[in-house]
Order: sequence, then C-alpha cells, then structure tokens
Amino acid sequence: AMEKSYMSVFLLLVALSCALAKEPPKKETKAPKETKETKPKLPQTLSRGWGDHLIWTQTYEEALFRSKTSNKPVMIIHHLDDCPHSQALKKAFAENKEVQKLAEQFVLLNLVYETTDKNLSPDGQYVPRILFIDPTLTVRADITGRYSNRLYAYEPSDIPL
Amino acid sequence: AMEKSYMSVFLLLVALSCALAKEPPKKETKAPKETKETKPKLPQTLSRGWGDHLIWTQTYEEALFRSKTSNKPVMIIHHLDDCPHSQALKKAFAENKEVQKLAEQFVLLNLVYETTDKNLSPDGQYVPRILFIDPTLTVRADITGRYSNRLYAYEPSDIPL
Repeated sequence: AMEKSYMSVFLLLVALSCALAKEPPKKETKAPKETKETKPKLPQTLSRGWGDHLIWTQTYEEALFRSKTSNKPVMIIHHLDDCPHSQALKKAFAENKEVQKLAEQFVLLNLVYETTDKNLSPDGQYVPRILFIDPTLTVRADITGRYSNRLYAYEPSDIPL
Repeated sequence: AMEKSYMSVFLLLVALSCALAKEPPKKETKAPKETKETKPKLPQTLSRGWGDHLIWTQTYEEALFRSKTSNKPVMIIHHLDDCPHSQALKKAFAENKEVQKLAEQFVLLNLVYETTDKNLSPDGQYVPRILFIDPTLTVRADITGRYSNRLYAYEPSDIPL
C-alpha cells in the first residue's frame, strides 16, 4: 500500500509534468534575495500556499519523527518564492484535488532553506525538487521525475478540464 | 546596540521569571506524545501562538541565513505543546507588549523538535529553553536565565498591572 501510494503520487506528478513542459527547469536559483526586506503576510503559515487544508510539518526533524511514529512516508518539497517554476508547480499542486487528496497519505514538508542532510540533494540543490523518505528513514533517491539532468524536478501542467 | 538589546530582553525575561517562580521547571518532557493523532488547527502558523504579528522563521537554517543577511541576532525558543511551563511562558511572551516589541529586534524561531546542532543544548535538552545566536553565527551560551541547574530556562510571571 505504501509502495502503491508512492507510485500513485509519482505517476500523477509525472503525468502533470509531461503534458506541458518539454524542458526541465532552466533557472538555478541559489537563495532568495533578502536585501530589501519584504514584509510577509502575517501570520505566516506552514503550508506556504501548497495546500492550507493539509497538515504540514515545520522542520526536517519533525518530519522524520512523525514518519517514524505514524509509519507514513515523508514528501519534501524544496522550492523558492522567487522561482517561477516553483510557483507554477505550487499552483498546480494546491489546486489539484487529486494531488491534495494523495498528499494526505504523506508526512508533508515544504522548505525554502535547504537542510544540512546531503541525502536530500543526491544530484545537487535546485528547485523545485521533491524527495521522498520512507518510514525507515531512508531517502528514496530511486523515486525520480522525468528529467535525466535533474532527477527530482517536476513541472506543472494545466489541470485537465 | 546589539549588546543592549540582548541585555534588555535578558533582563526583561529574568524580571518576568523572578516575580512568580521560585523553582525552575521540574518537568523534563522528552518529546511530544503523538500516539493519538490530534488534528491541528488549520492552517498551522509559524508563530504557534508566540506572537502572530511577529515575523517567524521556519527552520534553523533559515534563521541563520536571515541573521547573517540582516545582521540581527537570533532568538530560538524551544518549547512543547504539552508542557505547562512552555504554555505559561508562551502566554506571558505573547501577551506582553514590551516583549513583543523587543522581539522585533530578533530573527525569531520557535521549535518543538530539536535541531541536530549540539551548540543549542549546552546543558541538555529541556523546555522551555531560550538560546541566542549573534549574526556571526555564534551561539551565545553566556546569555542565561536565573536557574543554575537549567541555564536557559525561563519562567513566566503575571504581567504587572
């Protein structure tokens, strides 16, 4: 069942990716520009627009703990506010009911700032990038998207009418 | 000025601590009990009730980055939802306008799950526990509360009329 839900999400995301984008994300955004302090909308949420009705964990440590105790796999979404590819994927992710429903099967974490765990960047740090971790706390580097140069990148698609 | 705002917050927190509590927090809560999944109020916020009008960072990595770029010191509050001492301190922290005002001078982070950085637990992991980090990314283990057995513990007080 675990394996199945991995696959469902994987296939769904790949399907989403395939329809629209022929090219993987080109822009490598290193870190958000924080020179002029832009005031965030208060109070800030953990969902950050990826699904307000889902339960999001705050940190990697929390996600690992909850995965162990709940026996659910972790889905970690790396993204950036000023990256259009991230924004487009977020929109597709948040607006697709099927994705939102599937996401409930996971311990969810979305991160703008990378953790120090090198296992979360098997082929480098780029966004958007989605990694899965199973409840034995193994990073599933075998679960990839469709781009050979950026294994964990996903592109959104128009949501089918 | 940096030194001064450290001291102000320190003195204020100590003052808060002194008035009420004669004893340091007794209860050592290790990790939140998650056996029965309690549904959090959605969407969850980064403030977690410590001040909805303040800007909170999500993770330790984000806090360090923002400290470096903004030249503000970091204030990290370790707490737990099921620890009455944490709850009491949170209430005092959130309701005291002076504390909230001072808190604006800091890069703020409140954590329920400990980071892997050992520098954040100079005398062990317990809650509530407040640590400060200066913009050179040095954990200021010299900034302590009034309890010799738990150096970074703080107790709330009734807010003075």
